[in-house]
Amino acid sequence: MLHKICYLGDDTLQGAAAYLAGIMSHFDLPYDYVASAQSPDEGFASRQYALYVISDYPAARFRKGQMSYISECVHGGSGLLMLGGWESFFGQSGQYHQSPLAEVLPVTMRPADDRRNCAQPCLVWKVAEHPILEGLPWDQPPGIGGFNALTPKPDTETLLHSVRFSVCRREGEFEFVRGEALPLLVVGMWGSGRTAALATDVAPHWVGGLVDWGDRRVVQEVAGSLAEFGNWYAEFFRNLLVWTGKWEAKEIGDRRSEIGG
Amino acid sequence: MLHKICYLGDDTLQGAAAYLAGIMSHFDLPYDYVASAQSPDEGFASRQYALYVISDYPAARFRKGQMSYISECVHGGSGLLMLGGWESFFGQSGQYHQSPLAEVLPVTMRPADDRRNCAQPCLVWKVAEHPILEGLPWDQPPGIGGFNALTPKPDTETLLHSVRFSVCRREGEFEFVRGEALPLLVVGMWGSGRTAALATDVAPHWVGGLVDWGDRRVVQEVAGSLAEFGNWYAEFFRNLLVWTGKWEAKEIGDRRSEIGG
Repeated sequence: MLHKICYLGDDTLQGAAAYLAGIMSHFDLPYDYVASAQSPDEGFASRQYALYVISDYPAARFRKGQMSYISECVHGGSGLLMLGGWESFFGQSGQYHQSPLAEVLPVTMRPADDRRNCAQPCLVWKVAEHPILEGLPWDQPPGIGGFNALTPKPDTETLLHSVRFSVCRREGEFEFVRGEALPLLVVGMWGSGRTAALATDVAPHWVGGLVDWGDRRVVQEVAGSLAEFGNWYAEFFRNLLVWTGKWEAKEIGDRRSEIGG
Repeated sequence: MLHKICYLGDDTLQGAAAYLAGIMSHFDLPYDYVASAQSPDEGFASRQYALYVISDYPAARFRKGQMSYISECVHGGSGLLMLGGWESFFGQSGQYHQSPLAEVLPVTMRPADDRRNCAQPCLVWKVAEHPILEGLPWDQPPGIGGFNALTPKPDTETLLHSVRFSVCRREGEFEFVRGEALPLLVVGMWGSGRTAALATDVAPHWVGGLVDWGDRRVVQEVAGSLAEFGNWYAEFFRNLLVWTGKWEAKEIGDRRSEIGG
């Protein structure tokens, strides 16, 4: 297995993918990248990655058999992470509901437009303890701008909810009324691989305030430009990649083999 | 004077500019466009537009004399609208604070990074009556993701504030505490031209929930792709363009001259 991430989607490294690619570079997580308009190369099914990350990458971009190949890899121990967006899950044009990945992911997708755009505040709400959430100040929750409406499957774990608020201004005061809470981060297993579904996006516009969550700024060079974001945002996504790709165990393994060699 | 908008910035029509270009197309407001990486052409100073819109377009992109030319045009009756962003006002790389447009705009810029990124809710707050704000439900305020910190000049009018909230989660409940309010939309005059400064962006990520503000969705083709946003968002920006460019008076004038001819 390649000790590497296969990251597909979020337009291009010069576009929305600069965020997650910036996080991977910042934390020294090696990756191969496939832009949203491209298909994976013909040799895709001859390599097994430690982790597949699919984010705003329409299901229609995969060549015949490539999604089934990912399913086999995950069954054999690779991780699979899908991040939300208009081209993820069902979305506007993600259309994964009848794909081979529908049974692998830890959530059930609606067979129709599942986009929820939030003009008024929507906050991230921690609902479980988990390594992905460790060390971050969830009592100072960030906002998000939208998400895909998803249903957790049995035998999965929901770690975060999104919770929407409606705000009215009455006589100079702002009244916040708490509305619907929906699954935002769900994790599970497929064979011996870990799976995760994050219903919001890693990049604007759905990432919302989450991209600026932090007490200091991180600036990272990606493909000749600088990506800038909050440190807690970066650490959350790092944790999500590391856990889903079983990265820490692998790093220990590699270090040991280097020492042993 | 050309009965047309000159729109500069927001990357490209395939990128962030699709939002405002989509609004202009949707409401039949004709425009010429200059991408953020381009300079205005050599013939720029031989044409006077009804309205200049500068949005995430670094001051350094203008050729020598072109900003002074805009200043003269506005003095003579054109409109000038600057929209916020990391490449607007001072921003990260807007750097308009010592440009010829600094005296034209209705706001004073800080001589240093003026970016305010909001991880937690920031709402739009109507503080005056004005044609730009008419017909929109400001009592159901949208959120924004950030803004440039600006100071209104004397003899200008502040129409909108941004108001930030800090949110803490305590024992399962979310507590919102109202924080700082800062100018979000300021309008003024320069000679016989109207000027406006909007401190937030028309596009992600700073536009925040504002882009989805509406009770129905607008879908508009721009440069071969579809832009999608809320109808109240679109109407707010239409009002801002129409008022700053004195569009309604000009439309009436044009129609009359057609009838008279």
